[in-house]
Amino acid sequence: MTVQIFPVRGVGAVEPGDDVAEILKFGLSEIGPEHGDVLVVTHKIVSKAEGAVREITGDEEEFKQRLVESEAVSIVRRRGDLIIAETKHGFVCANAGIDRSNAAPGTMILLPDDPDRSAHRIRLKLQNLLGLDLPVIISDTFGRPWRTGLTDVAIGISGVQAILDLKGTLDWTKRQLDVTEIAVADEIAAAADLAMGKSSGIPAALVRGVGELHGEGRGSDLVRPVGEDLFR
Amino acid sequence: MTVQIFPVRGVGAVEPGDDVAEILKFGLSEIGPEHGDVLVVTHKIVSKAEGAVREITGDEEEFKQRLVESEAVSIVRRRGDLIIAETKHGFVCANAGIDRSNAAPGTMILLPDDPDRSAHRIRLKLQNLLGLDLPVIISDTFGRPWRTGLTDVAIGISGVQAILDLKGTLDWTKRQLDVTEIAVADEIAAAADLAMGKSSGIPAALVRGVGELHGEGRGSDLVRPVGEDLFR
Repeated sequence: MTVQIFPVRGVGAVEPGDDVAEILKFGLSEIGPEHGDVLVVTHKIVSKAEGAVREITGDEEEFKQRLVESEAVSIVRRRGDLIIAETKHGFVCANAGIDRSNAAPGTMILLPDDPDRSAHRIRLKLQNLLGLDLPVIISDTFGRPWRTGLTDVAIGISGVQAILDLKGTLDWTKRQLDVTEIAVADEIAAAADLAMGKSSGIPAALVRGVGELHGEGRGSDLVRPVGEDLFR
Repeated sequence: MTVQIFPVRGVGAVEPGDDVAEILKFGLSEIGPEHGDVLVVTHKIVSKAEGAVREITGDEEEFKQRLVESEAVSIVRRRGDLIIAETKHGFVCANAGIDRSNAAPGTMILLPDDPDRSAHRIRLKLQNLLGLDLPVIISDTFGRPWRTGLTDVAIGISGVQAILDLKGTLDWTKRQLDVTEIAVADEIAAAADLAMGKSSGIPAALVRGVGELHGEGRGSDLVRPVGEDLFR
């Protein structure tokens, strides 16, 4: 099936207290969402709307270090200014998810308090506004060990599977697949990033044609339990 | 810009000695490739065509363990049957990239010897066949620390950037972006997987609308140098 990814346009600056669903409504209407589409929203506008921002006081670099340490539940690695930390959500990422890009001047952006709940709230509100149950993925940009560069991943989910489990599925030789757990929500987040771009100010994309992935996945489904993790 | 991902259909079983470009030509013609499109090909059909397969002798599990050890240049972690190994290409992945799914019965599939060269060869051949310079990404399915499930990544590249470097780019507040290196080839590989599916037998997809990413990236651009890697 052909997959299509539409950037959601027409979103301006987002302020604490704003309603993300209201903000996206116009851009979504321009596209015309359909049953089966998945909406991907970058966490930054969600964090801003929810007030998950901090005003910088004093020296910016020192402020950031303190903020990272307060947001982290554990420091996984540290080298120079780079801190890889585990957040309270269980995500392992640089700076515990704290961001300065696209933040209002003088502020830093945190991760949403509960990205699944944020996704669910946007989904419910959009259902009212559009009359369509549109699954929502909230994305962030993470680095990864061993590989350079960053990709977008899913940190909050409502209405769609996080992992596509192909256990019991046969390949074309009628053999059981070795690889059965596809991180489909992360692949959708990465695909959505291709239509957004980092500097364009487009904070959301509508992904069409990913098949029947309806489900109640959660961001935490994508977090490997510490006991199964070979790299912590 | 709207991104579109078209599955490349009509590809049957691939045998050693087959020509991947010839095999994809029909399915690509059905889509009608355009300037700026990127072709993503799963490594399995490339490996098969290049004869990067091994016939299983003796006990399958023991054979696999020996094969993984011979393909690995170093073992990064081992737990039970699971081996995370570094390949000669520098990739860190499960089983040094050896796969049984979608292999002909009684065989295992290795990674291509030089995935960048494979990509380049397919690109040149397709240029002859289609009269169009179509960048090629060869993909494989990798796991990752900290996160569950697997996503497709780029292991071989010809004609497109591996990393989109946004250094010096300003965000909408006119601030320099913090995050500047986007692993765009990996995002394209992940997006392509959404249109392929693991059990459908579709081994390639054409990605349209990712913007001007022309360049000579290589698979090794996505490998973090050991000295900069905090997790080896």
